[in-house]
Amino acid sequence: MGSLPLQTVPTEFLEWSRHRQALLEERLQNILPAPEIAPGRLHAAMRYAVLGGGKRVRPLLACAAGEVAGASLERTLLAGAAVELIHAYSLVHDDLPCMDDDVLRRGKPTCHVEYDEATALLVGDALQSLAFQVLAEYRLTDEPALQLEMLRILASAAGSRGMAGGQAIDLEAVGRSLNAPELEFMHMHKTGAIIRAALQLGVRCGKRLDEAQSLHIDHFAKCIGLAFQVVDDILDTESNTATLGKTAGKDARSDKPTYVSALGVAGAKSLARELREDAMQALASFGDRAVRLRQLADFIVMREF
Amino acid sequence: MGSLPLQTVPTEFLEWSRHRQALLEERLQNILPAPEIAPGRLHAAMRYAVLGGGKRVRPLLACAAGEVAGASLERTLLAGAAVELIHAYSLVHDDLPCMDDDVLRRGKPTCHVEYDEATALLVGDALQSLAFQVLAEYRLTDEPALQLEMLRILASAAGSRGMAGGQAIDLEAVGRSLNAPELEFMHMHKTGAIIRAALQLGVRCGKRLDEAQSLHIDHFAKCIGLAFQVVDDILDTESNTATLGKTAGKDARSDKPTYVSALGVAGAKSLARELREDAMQALASFGDRAVRLRQLADFIVMREF
Repeated sequence: MGSLPLQTVPTEFLEWSRHRQALLEERLQNILPAPEIAPGRLHAAMRYAVLGGGKRVRPLLACAAGEVAGASLERTLLAGAAVELIHAYSLVHDDLPCMDDDVLRRGKPTCHVEYDEATALLVGDALQSLAFQVLAEYRLTDEPALQLEMLRILASAAGSRGMAGGQAIDLEAVGRSLNAPELEFMHMHKTGAIIRAALQLGVRCGKRLDEAQSLHIDHFAKCIGLAFQVVDDILDTESNTATLGKTAGKDARSDKPTYVSALGVAGAKSLARELREDAMQALASFGDRAVRLRQLADFIVMREF
Repeated sequence: MGSLPLQTVPTEFLEWSRHRQALLEERLQNILPAPEIAPGRLHAAMRYAVLGGGKRVRPLLACAAGEVAGASLERTLLAGAAVELIHAYSLVHDDLPCMDDDVLRRGKPTCHVEYDEATALLVGDALQSLAFQVLAEYRLTDEPALQLEMLRILASAAGSRGMAGGQAIDLEAVGRSLNAPELEFMHMHKTGAIIRAALQLGVRCGKRLDEAQSLHIDHFAKCIGLAFQVVDDILDTESNTATLGKTAGKDARSDKPTYVSALGVAGAKSLARELREDAMQALASFGDRAVRLRQLADFIVMREF
């Protein structure tokens, strides 16, 4: 990737990730109602939309942030599951004909193609409710007041001043050319808000960090959230549909502003590299506790390269 | 209404209701982001969908239930506002072309007609997030653990085993004829769950009720929730579009099972009367503290007659 040194992903990081991905899958399996429970078709469709796919980057970020704060793995997995449910709902709604009208997601037909539009609408709605139910139902902290704060963080990150707002800004931007600061504003909402929430929730499953430490984690989250989107735009340009598991080249064809259209491929790669450096510096004071966050930052920036 | 004695709504109940409706409108005005805040079009559409319409039955039920438990008006208004946001989101999504495809709501063009489908989808999504944000952000009880329980109640009532699930059962029922127990199962989810949640939240803003009292309130909630739907079905048959503020006769035309199709108009009216009696009996032990709940039960069963 441009001037980034070629690196291989450390085996023990892959093991750490796979272990957590497997545990998360189990938690999601249990959290999602069984298809035997009425309404069966809706529950089957919810499971279809959530299970058996995805890199689970947000829950992994929650786990890694939890390690910085000495959180229990079980609590961060549940917090991560709530974040992943919000992410999964947003993908289902995003793929609907009135939004991106996409037919392929995670290598499978999208939810409204496999089921139908009305069911996909309800799947997204019900997954959002379920995310908040998880945060309200399980014991994720020793202080209920702190758990309320976690709910407030996720609700705010999902809403009109977070992810849903980012989608609206995206809609308004189709056909217009945005410059880099405008793109940043859009993506800070659209994908950045939930990534920040994943880290904030993970941290809150553990011991309270002091204010400076919290700001460092949050700065890391902002950098990595933006880097994630920049790399997504690069992949959308350079990869093929089979590798991505979703329709490649779609953003450019649908005249959506991307980092590649704003900065060119080389410029976008350079920005991703800068954001990674910035993210790493934010972790400087945490020492070994932040090793997984650093590895995830590398993984996010260098995936598929 | 059938053998129900003709009654006029007591003036002081109307005053009580109007006072709370006005205060609720103020709270909603403040809770909903201003259209000056980006993304402005989304925020304008959210306000369009929520403000200046609706009987606010669910917040009134929350206020009346709060009076039984000695809750502060301010707290029950905020809990009621959260419930109303969930209700408003469900109407916006319900009216979408892939669901009921309706063009008129509360006497105005539906959200996707006034704006566009993608915006209406995001309006619903963002209103749901906002509802949980309200419950997490304001202080509604003296115990944060109890407030987490309120969040759990609303999330569960909104989700796949509550309102969204009821919508899915409704989708599966189109074109089939349901008997009264099947209809009850559908409506206990579709409209009943959120009405129960409104009462449960209102009660939890005040002093804890004992178990028997909680069960009485919950039984009242179930009866009144079902009565609400039965009366809706009667109104859909007997009223005209101007009076309803939404398209009349639509359920029958779209071959949806209703209480009128299952029981006939006389049978539906008789069921509404029985449910009202049952609801009133559930309140017997509360004396004067439940006067508003009784008046609301009458209002729900006798509206527009």
